[in-house]
This record gives sequence, structure tokens and C-alpha cells, in this order.
Amino acid sequence: MQFGQLTPTLLSAFEEIVGTSHVLTPARLEEDEYARYGRDHTEDLAFRPDVVLRPANADEVSRIMRLCYEHRIPVTPRGAGTGLSGGALPTYQGVVLSTERLNQILNIDQRNLQATVEPGVINEVFQNAVKEVGLFYPPDPASKGSCSLGGNLAHSSGGPKAVKYGTTRDYVLNLEVVLPTGEIIWTAANTLKNSTGYNLTQLMIGSEGTLGIITKVVFRLLPYPQQNILMLVPFRQEEQAAEAVSAVFRAGIIPSGMEFMEREAIVWSSEYLQIPLSLPDDVRAHLLIELDGQDLDQLYKEAEQVYAVLENYDVGEILLADTAAQKDELWKIRRNIGNAVRYNSVYKEEDTVVPRAELPTLLKGVKTLGEQYGFKSVCYGHAGDGNLHVNIIRGELPDEMWHEGLKQPIRELFQLCVRLGGTISGEHGIGLVQRPYIGIALGDVQLNLMRGIKQVFDPQGIMNPGKIF
Amino acid sequence: MQFGQLTPTLLSAFEEIVGTSHVLTPARLEEDEYARYGRDHTEDLAFRPDVVLRPANADEVSRIMRLCYEHRIPVTPRGAGTGLSGGALPTYQGVVLSTERLNQILNIDQRNLQATVEPGVINEVFQNAVKEVGLFYPPDPASKGSCSLGGNLAHSSGGPKAVKYGTTRDYVLNLEVVLPTGEIIWTAANTLKNSTGYNLTQLMIGSEGTLGIITKVVFRLLPYPQQNILMLVPFRQEEQAAEAVSAVFRAGIIPSGMEFMEREAIVWSSEYLQIPLSLPDDVRAHLLIELDGQDLDQLYKEAEQVYAVLENYDVGEILLADTAAQKDELWKIRRNIGNAVRYNSVYKEEDTVVPRAELPTLLKGVKTLGEQYGFKSVCYGHAGDGNLHVNIIRGELPDEMWHEGLKQPIRELFQLCVRLGGTISGEHGIGLVQRPYIGIALGDVQLNLMRGIKQVFDPQGIMNPGKIF
Repeated sequence: MQFGQLTPTLLSAFEEIVGTSHVLTPARLEEDEYARYGRDHTEDLAFRPDVVLRPANADEVSRIMRLCYEHRIPVTPRGAGTGLSGGALPTYQGVVLSTERLNQILNIDQRNLQATVEPGVINEVFQNAVKEVGLFYPPDPASKGSCSLGGNLAHSSGGPKAVKYGTTRDYVLNLEVVLPTGEIIWTAANTLKNSTGYNLTQLMIGSEGTLGIITKVVFRLLPYPQQNILMLVPFRQEEQAAEAVSAVFRAGIIPSGMEFMEREAIVWSSEYLQIPLSLPDDVRAHLLIELDGQDLDQLYKEAEQVYAVLENYDVGEILLADTAAQKDELWKIRRNIGNAVRYNSVYKEEDTVVPRAELPTLLKGVKTLGEQYGFKSVCYGHAGDGNLHVNIIRGELPDEMWHEGLKQPIRELFQLCVRLGGTISGEHGIGLVQRPYIGIALGDVQLNLMRGIKQVFDPQGIMNPGKIF
Repeated sequence: MQFGQLTPTLLSAFEEIVGTSHVLTPARLEEDEYARYGRDHTEDLAFRPDVVLRPANADEVSRIMRLCYEHRIPVTPRGAGTGLSGGALPTYQGVVLSTERLNQILNIDQRNLQATVEPGVINEVFQNAVKEVGLFYPPDPASKGSCSLGGNLAHSSGGPKAVKYGTTRDYVLNLEVVLPTGEIIWTAANTLKNSTGYNLTQLMIGSEGTLGIITKVVFRLLPYPQQNILMLVPFRQEEQAAEAVSAVFRAGIIPSGMEFMEREAIVWSSEYLQIPLSLPDDVRAHLLIELDGQDLDQLYKEAEQVYAVLENYDVGEILLADTAAQKDELWKIRRNIGNAVRYNSVYKEEDTVVPRAELPTLLKGVKTLGEQYGFKSVCYGHAGDGNLHVNIIRGELPDEMWHEGLKQPIRELFQLCVRLGGTISGEHGIGLVQRPYIGIALGDVQLNLMRGIKQVFDPQGIMNPGKIF
């Protein structure tokens, strides 16, 4: 790809658009702060943009894009930088377009159970705002306290509640998008149904900033489920934990959370959080199961059915969380596994996903590969969705093994996913680091269709170049 | 568009692919039967294909497409021909490719709550098959007894249950598609989550046969809700019926059906079905409200909450259906409104959709336009989704008014939808008859993106030409 160079004239033009204080360059910012815009939460990767722009609205984004389009400057959109596949890394330098100032909740429409928001709003801020008026926005990635809704849209992020409520894409009615040419469009209408032309909304979601920049979102919302029950179920065999997942669904129960954590995951996280946890030696894995709804009696009935299913497995004593504080603590442990792993060691996270019932086979496959190639992994994830996060721990692995040697087992891991009917990313995206593996999941025909679509939206190839394919 | 001609050589080649008995021409079929392939349920429109092909599998579809691609023959895919926007009409003659022999349920995977089916399977046949093993496929268009799943995919059909369970697109995990070039692809993986490249699955759904031919579908399924409650609520003011819809949701209830029927709709349908119904003179509209779940006690609690909401409106005596037979009868009345209207008169059906709370304004707008332009309309639809089917009755309208004069009020009706945040089709698609109006919902930039995507998939422009845009 042949890109244009950032010139002083262009910089002045950017300053005119967003104001000098929102054109960040190395000269204007502490080194640490500037470097932050070249990193995300993916391994220890770091790149360096030529400039960081912080527009305040769609019009400014549009004017920036027109200039970049004309001068063929690469533009990497950036939310909160919590991504795990390197999607926000400015691999071709150029402009990092940060959405941090597009951070307004514009409207919560209680009549229609909808909200219009800007992409820079933090997921949890939005959740709390709608909860205050009795409404519910379910997608809740582990990083909900720090990730932005725009980043969630880029990958259709899920989180624990996806098993019952679906992922980000299931809540989007309409998007305002600035195209690479600078044109501003709405993708659809603010309706629950739409059969009016091709689905541009769902095409944008999951496109990882390669087709345009989302500047407004209309979400649908649900009534807030007022009650929930949370139980932590210890298993003496990892694979039985994975098997029990399907059995619960077959019993007619749809939990609002169904999280798998192998022993190391829960141990590392509770140590990291300094939450004491006495774990019997024979416990190998846990399921964290949440039920939610409007009626507590009803939930207790469902919980009894879950207990009945679990009796068929070799489980330890089930912990039923009694108080809100205890529930928060259990979720805190689950949500901090990623942080705990990062605290212990650099790691590569593979976001494997298979049909739910294939999870035991996938888990076994991960461990076999580890033994065969000599790496340690910590596995956890959204078992109800068949979505297993495989953390390959750097630990004492030599450079050669870390940078090159792991490619083969990762390849084999993804091939196993595809053989089981799955794919190579459930919610983290392809971004930069999974790009070499996309051919395992998608053939040339599909990839060429995607490249063709990219060309339609972005004929100059300036939007987040070097990502996905 | 410049298309190639069907030659005897091509006909022989088709015969070799699908067998002589599945190459239908006017010479080989009764006139009535042949004419059927040039019609659907849209007004009284009729076209005439050069040939009808009935392939049995994806490989045959692929070989047909390769030939048509090479010779630039237009191909109109056809499901069961129950469409309401003319999407299956062969406006450029050429080949009608019927999916009627692609009618196998290939697999119901009870471990993963998934099923793999061919597009020619009738919606209700599939629903019943999965119900037999305790599973639930929710999308249920009024024509469920005769429409095919492939047609449902073409428009992302909804039906009464969409309000709680979403439309067809919410149940699709993966599609096998034959592209216009004859290449066969799978769009995704058999997983509940997928963040691996652009969402080709959702791009295909709702594309009305203009991008390729779906030959297999992997659906996700739910546990079957074993219990339901159905109530028919008479209102003395149409607009209050529409207002009550939003109020029920705001009370935290998500009904599994929330259907609006104005007086004429229910009267015509019950007369058509010869079901006696004594309707007080002052009743102007009904809401048919269904609640479903696994626990009847819980549903009665919810029903009480619904009653409490309805107390705020001027409603007549609420009929709570006591028996399965009574429920079936009420649903039969609702499902046959379209047939009853068709029995009474030729009609144009507009599939308007707005945010739910805007329904009273939309309904009022329809009636005002009717008074202004001198037409009668019968309105009913999925009020929970803001989806109102407006049936404009031909009755005694003169030719000029029917063919030309109605264009202006229809245009104004759609403009009203868009002003209210809605769009011009919720579930019937654009097809042929709404095509002149698509510019009301989508601007040139969006339409050009769609045309660009069409070009990527179908560079020869042979797939269902003349539809959508």
C-alpha cells in the first residue's frame, strides 16, 4: 500500500477542524501519554502514529476523513484501546482518530425503549444510565468499566450475558457512519424490524473500523431484570464442566450467565484481587451460573432444575451467592482473570469459539497441544456460547518459541475449532494478530467478497489498513 | 440491462443438470400450473419466465448458475411464492429457479440446539419438526403454513412472535450460498458468536435473492416454551390500542405476541372463516396479547400486570382464551386477515414500520390520507414491533386512481414513516412494488453502497434483476 505523507499543511488543516489542543503530536504530549495511542491490550505490541486527532462530532470526523481521503493518509479509529486483537494499532502510522470526545449519551427514549449514544461512551457508564430508568443494555464485556461502545461495535463484543441476550450486534437498530470519503450516512431506521435494502448496519458491526467510523448508535433496550441468582459450581473434571453446559440448556433453562473457569483461572484471579478462596485440591474447574428475571420465586424454581441437572455430574459443594456483595465478588473474580493473567505474564489470547456441545473436545485439544508443544495455557470463557478464551502464557518460553514456535500450535488450535464447526474469533475480532490465520476460517471466495466490499466503501484503502485480511 | 437469450442448447444443458422432468416450459405444463411460477401474492401482478428449473441440491444450483453467468441469463429465485412485494416475480423473464425440491430438514442437533435445513422447507413443517423434540423456532409469518424458509430469509420475515423473539435473521448462524458465478460458500460458522471478518450472513439475509441463492441454513433454536396465555382486548378508540402497546413494555413485560387489529380486520377475517363473533358496536380495535414461558403461575402473574396497565385505557371486556381450541381460533382469525382482505378485493399492502410508540401517529396518518385521497384501508399488524400492515382496498376505485392516483398518498405515507424514525418495509421487503419508493428511506450514498455490493457479488447483474433498487 502506498500512502501519502502527513505535511505541516495537513496538520494546520486538522488544527482548524478540531482545534489545536485536540491535535496531539509527540512534541505536544508527555512521551508516556503519546505512546498510549500506539498500544492496546494486545500482548506487548506498540506502534507510533504520526498524529492523534480528537474530533468532537460527526462533522469534524467528516472533514478529517475528506482530507485523509484526498491525501491518502491512513486512519486508525480508536475507542478506549482495550482491544485484544490489535485492531486499534496504527500499523501504518498516519492518523489515530480517537473517539474519546464523542462521549455523550444523547437520548434515552423511555417510550420506545431506545437510546442514542456516541461511540466514545464507556460501556458501563451507558449500562448504569439506562438502569437508572429501569432499562437494560445487556452486552457486558469483562472490560465493561473501561471499554467504549464504539470498540464493542467494532467486534460485536459479547460478555457473560451474551448467552441469553446476544452480543452487541443484537441491540443495534441504526448507525450514523462517516465513510472514508467523508460522507455521512445512517445505515437503517430506528425500528425493531427492517426489510429495506441490504443490511448495512450489520455489515458495519464487526468490521473493525475498516469500512468507516461510527459516530452515533441507536440501541434498543430491554426492561431491566430486577432479580438474579448466582451460583458457583465446582467440578472435579474439567470436561464434565463443559458437558454440563449443554445439559442445562437441554433442560429448558436459558441462564443469563454460564461461565467456565479452569482451576488456574480462578486461583490467579483471586490471588490478584487478594480475595481469599479456599479451593479443595480435587476441584479442577468451575461453572459460574447466573439466572435472571423479574420474579425471584420463578428463579428459585429454575435453580432447582439446574441443581437436578448438575446431580448427574461429579460436582463439589455448590456456592449459592447470598448477598449482592457476594455476587459482586464472584463476578469480580471472573472479570479479572484477564488482568490477573496479564499481571503474571505476557500472554497471547486466542478467542476460540465452537458449537456449545463441542467445548469438552476443544478444551481437551488445547491441553493436548500444550503438552505436545510445551506451553502452558489458562482457559476460561463464555461456556454457554461455546466461546473459550485460551491464554497462552509466556512464562519462561524462549524468544524463538514465543515469536515463531507458537504459530504452529495456534494454527492447529484454530483448525480444530473449524473442524468442530467453529471459528477463530467469537468476540475479540481478527485485527492484526489473528490476520495470518483468517484463511483457516474463510476461503479465498469469501475473502475476495470481503475485499470487494472493502473496496466499495474505501476505494483508497485508508481505513484501518492492515487489519482483518 | 442487456441479457442473453435462452437457446435450445442451454435448455439441453439444463436438462442434463436437473433432469428433463425438472425443466419446466410452457409446452410441458398445464397453462395454470406454468402461470403460477410467474405470480406471487402481490396484488394481481403476473410475469412469464422462459423456463422454470427445479434443482435438487447445491451442486445442481451451482452448475445452473455457471451457465447463466456465462450466458448472462437472468435468474429469479423462488420459494413458495407467498411474497407480498413481488420479489419472486420474473420481470426479465429468463430462469425461475425454484427451491421446491430443496426441502429436506438435514439435521436437528439436540446437543447444540441447532438445525440444518434446506430453503424449500415450509416454515410450519420446520417448526413442528423441532417442536417434536422440545425445541422452538420462533419466526412465524402469517403464511407459515405455506411459505418457505428461503423466502423468510430473503426478507427476514417476522410474524407475531418477533416482538419477543426477533425475526428470521436472529436465528441464522450460517448459510450455504451459491454465488451468481456458481461458486459455493458458507458465510460463517455454526457458532452463537462470530467476530471473524465481515458479516456475510446478515448481508445475505434480506437481500431478496439479489446476491446469491441460499442452499442450506444453520439455525439456532430455543427450548420450547411449554405454556402460554392469550387475551383479546377490545378498545373503544384505535389510538388507545396503539398507545397501550408501549405501556405494557414499560411495565417490564415482554409479550410473545402483541397484535393490533382494527375493527374491519377482525370482522372481515371472522366472516371469511365463518367464525361467529359478536362485536359490540363501540369496539374500534383489538389487541391480541400472548405471554409465553415455562411456568403457568408465572404467566398469570404477568397477565395480572398487563391487566393493571390496561385499566388505564377505555377497554371493553377482555377475553382470556380458556382452551387450546379457543387460542387456535383467535390466532386463526389474526392469521387470515390477509386472506380475508384478498377474498374481498384486490389490495395493495404497505408494510409500514415505526418506533413502537409512534404507532398512534402513524395510524392516524393513514386514516387522514385515506380521507384526503378517497381510499379505504384496513390496518392490522405487529404492534409490539411498530409494524403496521396497511391494506389499501381496491373496491370500486377507478383504474386511473388504482394504478396512478395512489402513488402520491403511498409516497406521503412512507414519508410519514421516515419522519417518525421508521422505514418503508418491516418484513415484506422492497422487491418490485416498493422499488419506486426506496429513495424515501435511503439516500444516494446508501443506495450506491448497496449497488457496489451487488456488483461485487453479481458482476453480470443476473440475480433477480429489477428488484430493490
